[in-house]
Amino acid sequence: MSVNERDFVQSIDRAFAVLRAFDARRPNPTLAELAEATELSRPAVRRILLTLRELGYVTDDTGHWSLTPRILTLGEHYSAANALVQAAMPHLVRIAERTAESASLGVLDNGWVIYAARVPVRRIMSINVAVGTRIPAYATSMGRALLAWAPEAVVAEVLDAAPLDRLTARTITDPAALRAELAGVRERGYALTFGELEDGLISLAAPVRDATGAVVGVLASSTSAGRSTPARLRAEVAPILLTHADRLSTELGYRPADS
Amino acid sequence: MSVNERDFVQSIDRAFAVLRAFDARRPNPTLAELAEATELSRPAVRRILLTLRELGYVTDDTGHWSLTPRILTLGEHYSAANALVQAAMPHLVRIAERTAESASLGVLDNGWVIYAARVPVRRIMSINVAVGTRIPAYATSMGRALLAWAPEAVVAEVLDAAPLDRLTARTITDPAALRAELAGVRERGYALTFGELEDGLISLAAPVRDATGAVVGVLASSTSAGRSTPARLRAEVAPILLTHADRLSTELGYRPADS
Repeated sequence: MSVNERDFVQSIDRAFAVLRAFDARRPNPTLAELAEATELSRPAVRRILLTLRELGYVTDDTGHWSLTPRILTLGEHYSAANALVQAAMPHLVRIAERTAESASLGVLDNGWVIYAARVPVRRIMSINVAVGTRIPAYATSMGRALLAWAPEAVVAEVLDAAPLDRLTARTITDPAALRAELAGVRERGYALTFGELEDGLISLAAPVRDATGAVVGVLASSTSAGRSTPARLRAEVAPILLTHADRLSTELGYRPADS
Repeated sequence: MSVNERDFVQSIDRAFAVLRAFDARRPNPTLAELAEATELSRPAVRRILLTLRELGYVTDDTGHWSLTPRILTLGEHYSAANALVQAAMPHLVRIAERTAESASLGVLDNGWVIYAARVPVRRIMSINVAVGTRIPAYATSMGRALLAWAPEAVVAEVLDAAPLDRLTARTITDPAALRAELAGVRERGYALTFGELEDGLISLAAPVRDATGAVVGVLASSTSAGRSTPARLRAEVAPILLTHADRLSTELGYRPADS
């Protein structure tokens, strides 16, 4: 199926534009502020807000609007319905147990890595689902493991589209240097970053493939310079992550061509 | 503003109905399955899916549809924009440090408690946002602390509407017994549950009030029977949670009438 103008429902597009307009800069916007942010007319924004309020996703108080926590439950649906997340959970639990560090599943979304699942070291509940936090792909082990085996068009979109921010003194922002990093990731089979997203953060990520051989996610483990070192992660954590990433890939139907 | 039929945008309602129809029972539904689940016509569902795909929230593969991780990022907007979540974060971090257990912020949504924020014991990233997991209010310390000071109409909706499920051998499901529990919570100032949601889970929650005096959330700490006991939580964790809940309430503008 392909989308054409007749099939595109504008009011749905506009509803999500309004939802996305609530952010840290506009925590409790007025109708006028939302109209300005979305470039929609006030009557259009008003009808969207009234509808979203009826559905329980926004609420208003003396002319100011805010998102309700119900918006978080849409993520629960993603997690419950997602085969990768479901298949990854037991592996994340084992990785967290074996490494004594929180374990994460990351997926790529337009130059960002989204935490799709996460198992903290000590779990208080039996379920521990998606965080939804986004981190930039270029500066993280998860992003580099996802980009290393991605089609060149995807890599170019991330590395060449806009100047890359220097997040710490160690962040690599030169596209050519990042491409060399990606080649290294392909050679080693995993990505490791140290202090490029956040000072002292050490992170290692290994690729997960589906039946078609495409890298659909990464398993990752992170620690801090106070608790471990990059060398220790390579020696102790890399084998654990690679084992679980391979097993998970097999469960998803991946069969290496040359094995 | 109040909503009337003319203001209610049906296609937005339908788009969320389609998004909610993706769940564990229907992880990768076909168009026909989604039409059946939502009781919408196939042409209507088709247009919604094509629009949501264009927006990046769903994807399709050989006739089967699935949610994308981008749906998780809507939760990020909630967290970034929410004053309660933002104000609670430093308190959650301190509680996690002082108790050596993960700390959570819970909010009430129609009989459910939604995890609005959570700080695991060991943080790998500086941000640790909303989980979106929902747990039933009646069987959890978070829910009982939220219900204890809620208007009677809200309490009745949760306790009297439907028969309450017995989740473990210890779950209290009798509305009268639960009302007595809520009275106890009001007396003690916090709620404690032991093994009612999940065997061995011990949890304690303290109420957070806003400037109007309404309980708008709870701070909670959980552990397991292997690591602690209800008595130890009462002695050691309750004072910590109560202190932080009071400070957070003060930050939100709450001034106790009789202090």
